Amino acid sequence: MRDVAVIGVGCTTFGEKWGASFRDLFVEAGALALDDAGLAGEQIDALYVGNMSAGRFIGQEHIGALIADYAGLAASHHIPSTRVEAACASGGLAFRQAVIDVMSGMEDIVVAAGVEKMTDVGTGTSVDTLTGAADREWEGFAGATFPGLYAMMATDYINRYGLTREQLAQVAVKNHYNGARNPIAQFQQEITVETVMKSSLVADPLRLFDCSPITDGAAAVVVAPLERAREFTDCPVRVLASAQASDTIALHDRRDISTLDATVEAGRRALGQARLQHRDIDIVEVHDCFTIAELCAIEDLGFCAKGEAGRVTEEGITAIGGRLPVNTSGGLKACGHPVGATGIKQIYEIVQQIRGEAGKRQVDTKIGMAHNVGGTGATVVVHILGAY
Amino acid sequence: MRDVAVIGVGCTTFGEKWGASFRDLFVEAGALALDDAGLAGEQIDALYVGNMSAGRFIGQEHIGALIADYAGLAASHHIPSTRVEAACASGGLAFRQAVIDVMSGMEDIVVAAGVEKMTDVGTGTSVDTLTGAADREWEGFAGATFPGLYAMMATDYINRYGLTREQLAQVAVKNHYNGARNPIAQFQQEITVETVMKSSLVADPLRLFDCSPITDGAAAVVVAPLERAREFTDCPVRVLASAQASDTIALHDRRDISTLDATVEAGRRALGQARLQHRDIDIVEVHDCFTIAELCAIEDLGFCAKGEAGRVTEEGITAIGGRLPVNTSGGLKACGHPVGATGIKQIYEIVQQIRGEAGKRQVDTKIGMAHNVGGTGATVVVHILGAY
Repeated sequence: MRDVAVIGVGCTTFGEKWGASFRDLFVEAGALALDDAGLAGEQIDALYVGNMSAGRFIGQEHIGALIADYAGLAASHHIPSTRVEAACASGGLAFRQAVIDVMSGMEDIVVAAGVEKMTDVGTGTSVDTLTGAADREWEGFAGATFPGLYAMMATDYINRYGLTREQLAQVAVKNHYNGARNPIAQFQQEITVETVMKSSLVADPLRLFDCSPITDGAAAVVVAPLERAREFTDCPVRVLASAQASDTIALHDRRDISTLDATVEAGRRALGQARLQHRDIDIVEVHDCFTIAELCAIEDLGFCAKGEAGRVTEEGITAIGGRLPVNTSGGLKACGHPVGATGIKQIYEIVQQIRGEAGKRQVDTKIGMAHNVGGTGATVVVHILGAY
Repeated sequence: MRDVAVIGVGCTTFGEKWGASFRDLFVEAGALALDDAGLAGEQIDALYVGNMSAGRFIGQEHIGALIADYAGLAASHHIPSTRVEAACASGGLAFRQAVIDVMSGMEDIVVAAGVEKMTDVGTGTSVDTLTGAADREWEGFAGATFPGLYAMMATDYINRYGLTREQLAQVAVKNHYNGARNPIAQFQQEITVETVMKSSLVADPLRLFDCSPITDGAAAVVVAPLERAREFTDCPVRVLASAQASDTIALHDRRDISTLDATVEAGRRALGQARLQHRDIDIVEVHDCFTIAELCAIEDLGFCAKGEAGRVTEEGITAIGGRLPVNTSGGLKACGHPVGATGIKQIYEIVQQIRGEAGKRQVDTKIGMAHNVGGTGATVVVHILGAY
């Protein structure tokens, strides 16, 4: 089993990108990552791409081949190119498959990309497509939407742990603060608790500013055997752990609807693989598709006790400058959430922080963790990356 | 890099399975594969599933988690479960990712499954969904369908190589003969050249009996490190090669529309990995989504010269009892083509042949090859399996 390093990263800006097609997005992200690694396309041995639902968003499946083709590597080099899908965790899983591929010795230089073009359909189609990440038969057909499912988790959490509405809003305030310092973020504006509290109700208790947006975007990273990493970069970032866990697809089948057992398990496995403890982690990118999701993630990953994350957030512990900065990128909330790209963007952020290239949101980082969730927690993938 | 073996296989019957849901299908195939390997579910370390378009066929994405859940391994064991998609090559790629996972040392006992439930939508939706395997922007939006694209390949081939309409029909006749001897096949009837010639025209020169059908079905195989294989089975089947190649997604961008360069390349790579020559291969399962595709495959894999496959078929060389039996399962044409399952069903057939469990269609087999195509050849995956 070979050690693996990230040798290059690239990301488009995130947003409602009316002028860019699905193809434009991944070509841009891929070109940025190759440029960052100082690689020519023909040096790439294989591609993995995370994408949730291009079949419904743009009528296109077979995304692996499409990407190889538009990267100019299909007809000329016939490189293997594989799409991986696990709803909003598709990007994280594409990264994991790239890592496993290099570990196996099958390939050396592998690109993991993530892409989603969500704004080419109307809101109804968009909401219905995203419901495909939940249990279509027992949730979707009954009328549940994603905001509705996370609202049930939030309601349960509030009732059991006494979270205040203001504490929940603090997650969005922090992430917008960070997003305003991230040039790729969809939202570049700081907000206040009042902004959240006065925004329209989406699914009680979640308001508009508790929800991550609909976003177009793509991100790409290049991985290589650690022993070869310095051929390509002066600052390789080592992959210290890659762990994945599943849970029931339907929320109502869970042991506890406000604890994501797959997060607990993937986090535990990742720390075990890396032989690290919580205090060794400098920053975490967590999957804050809704504000409540960030609080659950911090707890379920083991960074604080259950019911404590609201207070931890309120006290600034998870802010830039705090003891454990969470979502320095702005998270899904402010950076935006092109579902298939998000997991790769998290890696992009951690790598930038480790390299000291995070500009106004820079945090002293030797080791960072990325936590990517599919659905309401049926798939979770956790990666730990470290300076080398 | 560890050697890998197949230790168990299972497959549902293929057909228009009105009484079975998507979930029923993969649960049945998975249970059969585990039973074949003598494994309990909790001994499985990870799952991969090939599925092309459940998002459009049944409104469900996040298939990996769904399968882990309905296999009873999500809430209890939180096993990693990942969907892989490359249109009609999704099954072959799922198998390949399972093999790479075991090679890497990340996991030991891994299930690769393939599933598609195609009959829950009408023909229009079905045809449009399948067009997502081609280039939506430059083929689909212009009105091209899959029969249309393969008809262009057939027309080009006929004009250049003098293939007769009767030779093309012989592919279907042979595959129906084989399907009639395969208990899982969708079509259990033998046909004649006349059946094909008198069937309705779909896309000139392709007639109804030149086309593989719309099918529901699932298949699963279990892989393990070769060194552990005999813990589970007396007849492990060794994975001798796993090769994948890409080409342009649009047919009109190819160097030659009746030669699949990705097949040429994946076949060449597979034989190189296995250090074998064509004469070492006893049987081949090729991707005969249309009759013309089988002829191209035989040639592009290098089993005969370009333009010779019609004559080779006519002479019975590819029939059971011939020198190189092709598609003993009945192929996509007669066994049926649930797109995500087909690549796994090919592995299932090769394993049955190597084990001597193929009943009325048994061929003396030590080494077999499986060839799985996505779209019109934008993704090709070739596996070689051998007795151990």
